[in-house]
Amino acid sequence: MGIVVSLEESRKEGWKPSLDALDAIVADDINRVNRLIVEKMESRAPLIPQLAGHIVAAGGKRLRPMLTLAASRLCGYEGDRHIALATCVEFIHTATLLHDDVVDESMLRRGQESANALWGNEASVLVGDFLFSRAFQLMVSDGSLKVLKILSDASAIIAEGEVLQLLTTNDTETSEEAYLEVIRSKTATLFAAAAKIGAVVAERPKAEEEALESYGMNLGIAFQLVDDALDYSADQAALGKTVGDDFREGKISLPVVLAWRRGDDNERDFWRRTLERQEQQEGDLERAISLMEKHGALRDTIERARHYGSIARDALGIFSDGETKSAMNEAIDFSIERAF
Amino acid sequence: MGIVVSLEESRKEGWKPSLDALDAIVADDINRVNRLIVEKMESRAPLIPQLAGHIVAAGGKRLRPMLTLAASRLCGYEGDRHIALATCVEFIHTATLLHDDVVDESMLRRGQESANALWGNEASVLVGDFLFSRAFQLMVSDGSLKVLKILSDASAIIAEGEVLQLLTTNDTETSEEAYLEVIRSKTATLFAAAAKIGAVVAERPKAEEEALESYGMNLGIAFQLVDDALDYSADQAALGKTVGDDFREGKISLPVVLAWRRGDDNERDFWRRTLERQEQQEGDLERAISLMEKHGALRDTIERARHYGSIARDALGIFSDGETKSAMNEAIDFSIERAF
Repeated sequence: MGIVVSLEESRKEGWKPSLDALDAIVADDINRVNRLIVEKMESRAPLIPQLAGHIVAAGGKRLRPMLTLAASRLCGYEGDRHIALATCVEFIHTATLLHDDVVDESMLRRGQESANALWGNEASVLVGDFLFSRAFQLMVSDGSLKVLKILSDASAIIAEGEVLQLLTTNDTETSEEAYLEVIRSKTATLFAAAAKIGAVVAERPKAEEEALESYGMNLGIAFQLVDDALDYSADQAALGKTVGDDFREGKISLPVVLAWRRGDDNERDFWRRTLERQEQQEGDLERAISLMEKHGALRDTIERARHYGSIARDALGIFSDGETKSAMNEAIDFSIERAF
Repeated sequence: MGIVVSLEESRKEGWKPSLDALDAIVADDINRVNRLIVEKMESRAPLIPQLAGHIVAAGGKRLRPMLTLAASRLCGYEGDRHIALATCVEFIHTATLLHDDVVDESMLRRGQESANALWGNEASVLVGDFLFSRAFQLMVSDGSLKVLKILSDASAIIAEGEVLQLLTTNDTETSEEAYLEVIRSKTATLFAAAAKIGAVVAERPKAEEEALESYGMNLGIAFQLVDDALDYSADQAALGKTVGDDFREGKISLPVVLAWRRGDDNERDFWRRTLERQEQQEGDLERAISLMEKHGALRDTIERARHYGSIARDALGIFSDGETKSAMNEAIDFSIERAF
């Protein structure tokens, strides 16, 4: 971890960071969020709770709503508004997952068949639209124009980021900057908004809003970087995801950007054939992984993630120490260390 | 027109209702809306203005934003808020069109190639999401929670309506009530919201809000009923649309509902084969149209539209007579008479 060593790590030999501490802190609140999710998916059209339930039940870590819940607790908030707003954040996330399934044609999402493989593109698009609208209805009930601004701005940036990603797909000359702009938009912006809302409901000063926004943004970038490295390295069963998805789709993530830049002409021909022209054959994924290992592309993608993780950690520096801050810091470590 | 005869019609021999009067009244405002549309489609991702511009430039009648503009004028509004809010309404409409293209797989939309035929499903989904988010950003800038509630409620109902339509597709036993619920949700709700907003920005009493909402809702139902009849009857060039789209997709619209109910066993076998099982062959569309003519299904779909048109007209009764009211009434007649 370089110079960033968490207290916990230095204390315990062989200890691995997890989300357990964060889970425990927000456990009661997340149960309330889960109940509200089920309640708000009710609809005249039974397909909506069925399909949305499939995604929601598939679980995932509920990391984004947990950020809203933890951040509001870090800010000493004692009301109820964070429950509905954390639910909004999860609905927006679920809507983008449903629409991503259409976009990515990925057949496995968190180890289960993706919603569009089961119900078709049409249903994924429409139920996503419904959840997105529901999120705005919930925000309107909450009544804060400030929160509405944060999440409508975030939604526009996410959609822009997804479009930008379409444009970089198959383009092996994508720069690290262009890649970062994509993941900042499509992933980290919602992490940032989710955390910032915690300070907003607690009516804390601008400095705390900005600190939490920075925490979320940098955590989100680190999280996505590691995800992109895992797509070339993790055990499929452990990840609940098909390894090589990004490769098969011709998605240009940082491991590719680095391997391309560090490779020779012969290797670049390989990347052009497999990712630009998408002419892939038996053994290509294995060769891609071995080229990445040769150039340290996966290792350095994780190193980049550590850099953003450090910024996230420092952003929280203005808050008093305590179990919530410690759990939020551990979430940074977890996001990175899950790669090992 | 039965007992509902507009003043204009009784005055002029051979006169046909049009949107000309409404166009003239909102001309300056609609130009401002068009400029704002172009301005708000700006994005780091050039595909967004390209693709959205394709849909927006394709034109359409801008009927929905015109309702907001006309209704605010009817209510004596003299500010500027109606411009941004009419733009929101058009963005929400355009987003649903883009998502509809994915759903319907229709290759022609308003006589041009549909956006998804040109750019693919992925782009249609994402640019739709962007426009939807932009609409909410514009509403947030406007700052009215009341408007935000109207349009977030409308968006959720529209998405539900689209899902309900998926469920009735291919189901020849769909009832007239189920069909009406679909078109009320997916089409008429946005007409209703668009018109209601005119009273809201003008801060008029609840009775006027409700009158405009009812005008929009019933106009929207009439408009969709006629659209559904036109899909089995109009000249493709005149309509700028492929006749028989609904038939090919197995969509159950009112002309089918009526023909099914009025048909014999032999005819029902035909509808089951062509619409439920979608086993269609040469000459089937022609037979469908001739069965509808035999049973007066198209004529009576237009008759149903007249019924809702009458309700829309009566809803405006509480407003003083004048050129705006007269033009809004003529829009009802136009929506129906364009069938002939």
